Amino acid sequence: MLLKIDLKNIMKKYAIIVAGGSGTRMGAPMPKQYLEIGGKPILMHTLSRFFEAEPKAELILVIPEKDFSLWKDLCVQYKFFIPHNLVSGGNSRFQSVRNGLNSITENEGLVAIHDGVRPFVNPEVIQESFEVAKEKGSAIAVVALKDSIRRLTDDGKSVYQERQYFRLVQTPQTFQIRKIKKAFDVTELHTFTDDATVYEHQGWQVSLIAGNLENIKITTPEDMAYAAYLFK
Amino acid sequence: MLLKIDLKNIMKKYAIIVAGGSGTRMGAPMPKQYLEIGGKPILMHTLSRFFEAEPKAELILVIPEKDFSLWKDLCVQYKFFIPHNLVSGGNSRFQSVRNGLNSITENEGLVAIHDGVRPFVNPEVIQESFEVAKEKGSAIAVVALKDSIRRLTDDGKSVYQERQYFRLVQTPQTFQIRKIKKAFDVTELHTFTDDATVYEHQGWQVSLIAGNLENIKITTPEDMAYAAYLFK
Repeated sequence: MLLKIDLKNIMKKYAIIVAGGSGTRMGAPMPKQYLEIGGKPILMHTLSRFFEAEPKAELILVIPEKDFSLWKDLCVQYKFFIPHNLVSGGNSRFQSVRNGLNSITENEGLVAIHDGVRPFVNPEVIQESFEVAKEKGSAIAVVALKDSIRRLTDDGKSVYQERQYFRLVQTPQTFQIRKIKKAFDVTELHTFTDDATVYEHQGWQVSLIAGNLENIKITTPEDMAYAAYLFK
Repeated sequence: MLLKIDLKNIMKKYAIIVAGGSGTRMGAPMPKQYLEIGGKPILMHTLSRFFEAEPKAELILVIPEKDFSLWKDLCVQYKFFIPHNLVSGGNSRFQSVRNGLNSITENEGLVAIHDGVRPFVNPEVIQESFEVAKEKGSAIAVVALKDSIRRLTDDGKSVYQERQYFRLVQTPQTFQIRKIKKAFDVTELHTFTDDATVYEHQGWQVSLIAGNLENIKITTPEDMAYAAYLFK
């Protein structure tokens, strides 16, 4: 019996973990992505989630070049052995992601882009993002709103909005490599608030998937307290 | 010298603290509004914030009638002496608020309506809500979004939204008594997600004020952990 393998279906997978920021908002001596919580630095938790979800995916960590030696020291200190490549961050999130994409020579395959300070992403969400992106070109993790929402109007008033029509945007945001590379080959615009908006700028529609509510972006000391609880 | 007092400017103030829910989502043996955190039940923190902000305001606490004796016991146990009236909750938030409003015989003056499980409201926000409501008829506390936001369209797609045009709605929601009483004298609609939408149903525009970000609604065990941190 001949075993027929469809090579096109064995798509190479990548994950770009973006942590280019200096994290000064936390008032900590060290950027927040390196702060220990639940036994190890936040970024190690995040990388572990992707390794758990997709053990064969190639992990690309984007951090400021000046932090490379700090990061390598932390990996030794915490005995962190999950393989990953380091790429230099840029002056904005857009530029950091683009640096990560440029480090991928492949044009086929899929790439998940994820905020380094979102260590609570469910592995199932990561897996689904790759499946949907393979099928549809993109997969953006979103969650429903817990609060009521209003829209401000130009005349200084505000209008009630039916919140079931709105979604808050998280990461991962996963794409077919060829398409997202093309999308990032443009001049940066201020409307590029995430990777989905860069992709859409090409006139392509993004596909949404359900994220998990706990997948918060850790940006404040209050978020750190919440995170410490979730790790327990 | 004659001291001229403008009686119309000494408006009577009320605050309705709504905690009609059974709080079963927490998986706790007791509704969440009675759970101790930071040394006393959540509701006592909330009442204290209003007492601190407006010592002369009359406080009205709306809880299920079956919890009245539990609440009185808790007040003794925690030596909680801030004066307040108890009013029976209804089958929905709308009905609980209406019961609270019906307990106010006055038609002049101002009333703040506030979720019992939002103990982190800033006293300054409460004070401003009364000032703005006196001037404009209403004052709704809102905060900006931390995440990007998308709107779902009827054809199954989604559209990026500029998040600076959106606000998440909190409480207090403060009103001129005469107007909000009239607004609540209607049949309950499913679109009444908060007091602002009830007020707007009369064709009146609401005024927004800046709330404080920590003023979260405690609804999950994760929220409780976050709350415990904020009390420290």
